Amino acid sequence: MGERARTAFAIMSGTTDAQKSAALIAAAAQLRASQKSILAANVQDMNQGRKNGLSDAMLDRLMIDEGRLDAIASAVEQVAKLDDPVGAVIDRNQRPNGLIMERVRVPLGVIGIIYESRPNVTADAAALGLRSGNAVILRGGSEAIESNRAIHKAMVAGVVEAGLPEDAIQLVQTTDRGAVGAMLKASGLIDIIIPRGGKSLVARVQEEARVPVLAHLDGICHTYIGKAADQDKAIAIAVNAKMRRTGVCGAMETLLIDQDYPAPGPLLRALLDEGCEVRGDDAIMELDPRTVSAETEDWNTEYLAPIVSARMVSGIDEALTHIAEHGSHHTDVVVTEDEAVANQFIQRADSAIVMWNASSQFADGGEFGLGAEIGISTGRLHARGPVALEGLTTYKWVVRGTGQIRP
Amino acid sequence: MGERARTAFAIMSGTTDAQKSAALIAAAAQLRASQKSILAANVQDMNQGRKNGLSDAMLDRLMIDEGRLDAIASAVEQVAKLDDPVGAVIDRNQRPNGLIMERVRVPLGVIGIIYESRPNVTADAAALGLRSGNAVILRGGSEAIESNRAIHKAMVAGVVEAGLPEDAIQLVQTTDRGAVGAMLKASGLIDIIIPRGGKSLVARVQEEARVPVLAHLDGICHTYIGKAADQDKAIAIAVNAKMRRTGVCGAMETLLIDQDYPAPGPLLRALLDEGCEVRGDDAIMELDPRTVSAETEDWNTEYLAPIVSARMVSGIDEALTHIAEHGSHHTDVVVTEDEAVANQFIQRADSAIVMWNASSQFADGGEFGLGAEIGISTGRLHARGPVALEGLTTYKWVVRGTGQIRP
Repeated sequence: MGERARTAFAIMSGTTDAQKSAALIAAAAQLRASQKSILAANVQDMNQGRKNGLSDAMLDRLMIDEGRLDAIASAVEQVAKLDDPVGAVIDRNQRPNGLIMERVRVPLGVIGIIYESRPNVTADAAALGLRSGNAVILRGGSEAIESNRAIHKAMVAGVVEAGLPEDAIQLVQTTDRGAVGAMLKASGLIDIIIPRGGKSLVARVQEEARVPVLAHLDGICHTYIGKAADQDKAIAIAVNAKMRRTGVCGAMETLLIDQDYPAPGPLLRALLDEGCEVRGDDAIMELDPRTVSAETEDWNTEYLAPIVSARMVSGIDEALTHIAEHGSHHTDVVVTEDEAVANQFIQRADSAIVMWNASSQFADGGEFGLGAEIGISTGRLHARGPVALEGLTTYKWVVRGTGQIRP
Repeated sequence: MGERARTAFAIMSGTTDAQKSAALIAAAAQLRASQKSILAANVQDMNQGRKNGLSDAMLDRLMIDEGRLDAIASAVEQVAKLDDPVGAVIDRNQRPNGLIMERVRVPLGVIGIIYESRPNVTADAAALGLRSGNAVILRGGSEAIESNRAIHKAMVAGVVEAGLPEDAIQLVQTTDRGAVGAMLKASGLIDIIIPRGGKSLVARVQEEARVPVLAHLDGICHTYIGKAADQDKAIAIAVNAKMRRTGVCGAMETLLIDQDYPAPGPLLRALLDEGCEVRGDDAIMELDPRTVSAETEDWNTEYLAPIVSARMVSGIDEALTHIAEHGSHHTDVVVTEDEAVANQFIQRADSAIVMWNASSQFADGGEFGLGAEIGISTGRLHARGPVALEGLTTYKWVVRGTGQIRP
């Protein structure tokens, strides 16, 4: 598969924006045209899932109905409309000897995507990979294998119809776990592995991979309420950051309140009134009888639930020290009207995303204006934060001369 | 060491351009002031090296005299003068909701550099790492340990004098090979490992590392002489690409001549007359009796010597297929006056650097206008081609709001 993907990639590198876009439009049309077979395949997975005792939440993630399939096809069409990053000249300089040096954006290569139950990832990941000129190898969860096969088959039909190589999108057809191991060790064939799933999947991938990994681990996001925070903004931001959707990686997990912030009580009250459990240190617990005591592990926990840990800090230094110790380099927020404090926080917080006076729930490629994202990288190399099409590219140096030789 | 480096990095992230530059100027001054102790330490290494039977070439790489030490200090001063990449705003966009999204360049973090005998790498790597706001952990070859210690001590004195943390530059003091293994597995403490040395070192690092690696493997560089190549340029470029310095990674190792190029004989003659051994396929061997026959492994060999493999190809497709099969994604060159052919080559050759009508010996950060380089990356992720200061940085997303919450 790796070798076929490399061959497909060599062809993909030479395709135009229009060809890649047309292939995705055709793939979306094929998804819609294959509604019957995709829904039938999904019924097989759902029946097997029920037999295997999957939880209702897992069955819900697995399920595809007409509406969801339409959303999947529409998402592919949206990706087709995004700007193609490939071919853009990043920078250019002419040397005194006349050589012109350009960095030009090119596809990354062969991308391996390993994911869990949601079958829509099959379409999303294939679309993003293809749009940016890559070849992709998809490895979905075994519980979604029939749905994934049906979605993959439809998309490949569209890709081939548009004249692009069928191997540009490959799906691992076996549910054997050894296939994942083989992907993780396929250096020279696979250029990057992107895991999309829970912590244990990502941890396994990071542990075993010999291929570079673009990984998103925890999102332990902090909001620091500075002493000069606007009280209305503080309440609105904290409640939104925690409660808008508690299951997303950009949700706030820890609230750090400056000891000189004048109105910590109303802030906690607002969260508690929204139904949020507040696990605080002693200073927090004194403020409201509904708060409970935070244990040590609370500061390192991504709840993904209506629970927040809360701590009183002596100032920005203690806030930053807490974040450095317990954070996950995802998204951290400062709320203050003092621009100097904000800039200090922005410079010193070592997070992929730092925000000033905004809700951490904005941590999403779409909200950043990047279009669809394949994930949010908490690593430091290559792409950081929301990874969209540009994150699936690299560059090459193009040197144009007129016969120059080096003295 | 890793934890001390992280602490130092946290401080380094907050330093200004002027502070980092001043620290390097002070470090260079300390190198000059410590001439006596550095040369004495080097004499110890040289004596030990002779006892251990190091080759003359290895002893030459190890040796430091007054002139070489002056060059080492000057190189550090040159790095001090380079533009600081940190703080630059890569891009910026304002969203309809008023949020301002910026990508701002920040240091990469803690960089581990593992290298072999040349002690000048201690100074070069420390200077490049520090200039871009990183903390570095250096691990040099055991044969240079005394020289490395003396150079490191002098530089740290300068760094401290300038008010920066001494742990910003750390040297592994033991020559125990286990130290390398520990660095390779220090994920969470070391952000990236850069190996600088021979193939076996780089291969070991790539095999064992759990930390991302910025590696430069072989430089098997090709020059393809198209049928429309200018004959004078073809000769000048091929001779320079092979013979200017045969031991550099940008040296040409394989010459691919289009079968319709009208003057292959004079081209081979020019190389042979310069003392280059030409190992050719049958078509090449017919052109000059001084050529010898290429074996299969010649096409995969980085000679780093006055030897070139040469093959006649049927056209650009065969040239590109050969490069895809045997190349190392380093630097590949097309010589032609036909712009359409050049552009096809530029698009399809999957190399970090592709050149048109220029010698592959220009593959060097200085020639690209980047200042000093830490290496040439043949990987696809993060930085590609010559890696200079910018390659030692990453970015963070800075989001500035006025109280926005996500609907």
